[in-house]
Amino acid sequence: MSSFETVYWEDPYVVLIDQTKLPSETLYHRYQDPEGVALAIENMIVRGAPAIGVTAALGLALAAKQSKTQDLSKARLEFSHWCERFARTRPTAVNLFWGIEKMKHISDQDFSDTDTWSEALLQEALRIREEDISFCKKIGEHGAALIKPESKILTHCNAGALATAGWGTALGVIRSAFHQGKNISVWVDETRPFLQGARLTAWELMQEQIPATLITDNMAGYFIQQGEVDAIVIGADRIAMNGDVANKIGSYTLSVLAKEHGIPFYVAAPTSTIDIACKSGAQIPIEERSPEEVTQIGGTSIAPQGMSARHPGFDVSPAQNITAIITERGVAKANYMESLAQVMETELAEATERS
Amino acid sequence: MSSFETVYWEDPYVVLIDQTKLPSETLYHRYQDPEGVALAIENMIVRGAPAIGVTAALGLALAAKQSKTQDLSKARLEFSHWCERFARTRPTAVNLFWGIEKMKHISDQDFSDTDTWSEALLQEALRIREEDISFCKKIGEHGAALIKPESKILTHCNAGALATAGWGTALGVIRSAFHQGKNISVWVDETRPFLQGARLTAWELMQEQIPATLITDNMAGYFIQQGEVDAIVIGADRIAMNGDVANKIGSYTLSVLAKEHGIPFYVAAPTSTIDIACKSGAQIPIEERSPEEVTQIGGTSIAPQGMSARHPGFDVSPAQNITAIITERGVAKANYMESLAQVMETELAEATERS
Repeated sequence: MSSFETVYWEDPYVVLIDQTKLPSETLYHRYQDPEGVALAIENMIVRGAPAIGVTAALGLALAAKQSKTQDLSKARLEFSHWCERFARTRPTAVNLFWGIEKMKHISDQDFSDTDTWSEALLQEALRIREEDISFCKKIGEHGAALIKPESKILTHCNAGALATAGWGTALGVIRSAFHQGKNISVWVDETRPFLQGARLTAWELMQEQIPATLITDNMAGYFIQQGEVDAIVIGADRIAMNGDVANKIGSYTLSVLAKEHGIPFYVAAPTSTIDIACKSGAQIPIEERSPEEVTQIGGTSIAPQGMSARHPGFDVSPAQNITAIITERGVAKANYMESLAQVMETELAEATERS
Repeated sequence: MSSFETVYWEDPYVVLIDQTKLPSETLYHRYQDPEGVALAIENMIVRGAPAIGVTAALGLALAAKQSKTQDLSKARLEFSHWCERFARTRPTAVNLFWGIEKMKHISDQDFSDTDTWSEALLQEALRIREEDISFCKKIGEHGAALIKPESKILTHCNAGALATAGWGTALGVIRSAFHQGKNISVWVDETRPFLQGARLTAWELMQEQIPATLITDNMAGYFIQQGEVDAIVIGADRIAMNGDVANKIGSYTLSVLAKEHGIPFYVAAPTSTIDIACKSGAQIPIEERSPEEVTQIGGTSIAPQGMSARHPGFDVSPAQNITAIITERGVAKANYMESLAQVMETELAEATERS
């Protein structure tokens, strides 16, 4: 297991590792105010779709615990405002909305008083967190089975323990394959503008001594062309029911390169990333972040004063470029309309059984 | 014309604008020592294939002027050592070797004394510089004819006035189209690791008030996918006789994206960039630069201490991905074996006529 925690509950705080400070500083923030947690999501102190879902759930549990009223209906009204607040933090990762829905579902159940209500919400958030870790390990197992014994794997952004409650999705696959004794080495895309690859993925892989080499995003094509990449594995921020996948900006280009060179392009994500309301990638909202994150690096200007810039945070890889989508419930392949529906039916059936 | 000079002779100095300092500082270095000029090429104070060719020629003229001996054969021997020194500065841009060869050719002609010899070398270097500017303008004219009246053009790295003696190749095409009154806007790839796009292309375009928007390299695919790119225009560091083109790392990926989306992919370069000794891209040496240029940005570490990195400076776009190669002698299209041979035959014939 990792030597760090991404997001956890330390009564009465939500604790987050500050991912804007890594790798130069390992700093944990304790939040006693749910607004602080919402801002932490907006400002990317925590990022990665599954981690955002878990953090929102814990942030909502914190809001419920903090509520001063003893009147359950008033508490629920406050809670629904907090749900709206968290829903406004970031638009693309569907796990955020999934986490909020899970919490709403608990809030709407029968409770005798606000104490049992808020405790039930906390328990649900903790369950979501634990579940995320166990799902990542299952994703790791399913994915590792697809990885050949000697593999050079390219990954983009950070879909690691830092992007989840632990273990990771794309890095979960890499971790599992590595721990199975496979001879794995990793090409790490630095992932401009936020440098999640250079700062976070590099850090995670070094901690576990998994051989890894950092490259700039525009070098991926060169190494693929040279035959130095056996597979690409990325995470996802939202998966449409037709198999289109929104993920960190730059993923689409990798999917085109993979197709051009006939190498497998795998997406690893928990089923909470699959949006059953979303028919295709065209319906996924793409977050446009501040252009200053492009014109500056670590607060230092790299472009002339006043230069225009754009900053879409994500792009959509079309289903036809994707070899397989690896979930905790198994591996979906084309036709995704069918395979993802199957995965989600199992999920829905099990959820019904549970409740 | 530009409000700055990239490389020029100010007796008895070679003067270079410091491209590592732009855009935050406009600093000119004067070199009285040819070793300083060689180091300036190695350290990318001057970069861009045509500019490197011109700078090497001026550096060799400086070496000849500096020579203390009155003995012509001794002076020529010294000169040949300087030719070797300059040839070791950077391996990929063929214009460097072309510039050196042009100077060697002059050095080997009949001279009565070292003064007339060194003066002839200076005149040749100045001629190469002037020729580069006029060739860029011709490239601009030929290229602009290919650009539609309303065009969003994506460019990578800097193939502008700063990469040549003036006007530029890829930016020459953009400049010429803009000055013809076409409604041009430019997507500027930042071009990691050295950020030639963010620092140099952005600066050149702002100076001329050509509408431009900076993006990270991994965003190009997204904007192409959105239909926001009508053409891609890049420069070249070496062109093989089959039409394969070596250019700044990341160019290959753009050529694949252009093919995928059916948008034209143009290469703009003077014929001095065409290597008649080179049959295909596989024969072009790709410079591997310091990994620290990847793990650091502007001297600040972006990756964990001790992280491995790779840094190929260039990649090769295969001829089949290239819509046209725009030279000062006209536009070559597939079959490049024939069209480039034709371009070079004209060049060779005219050179013979001239000498």
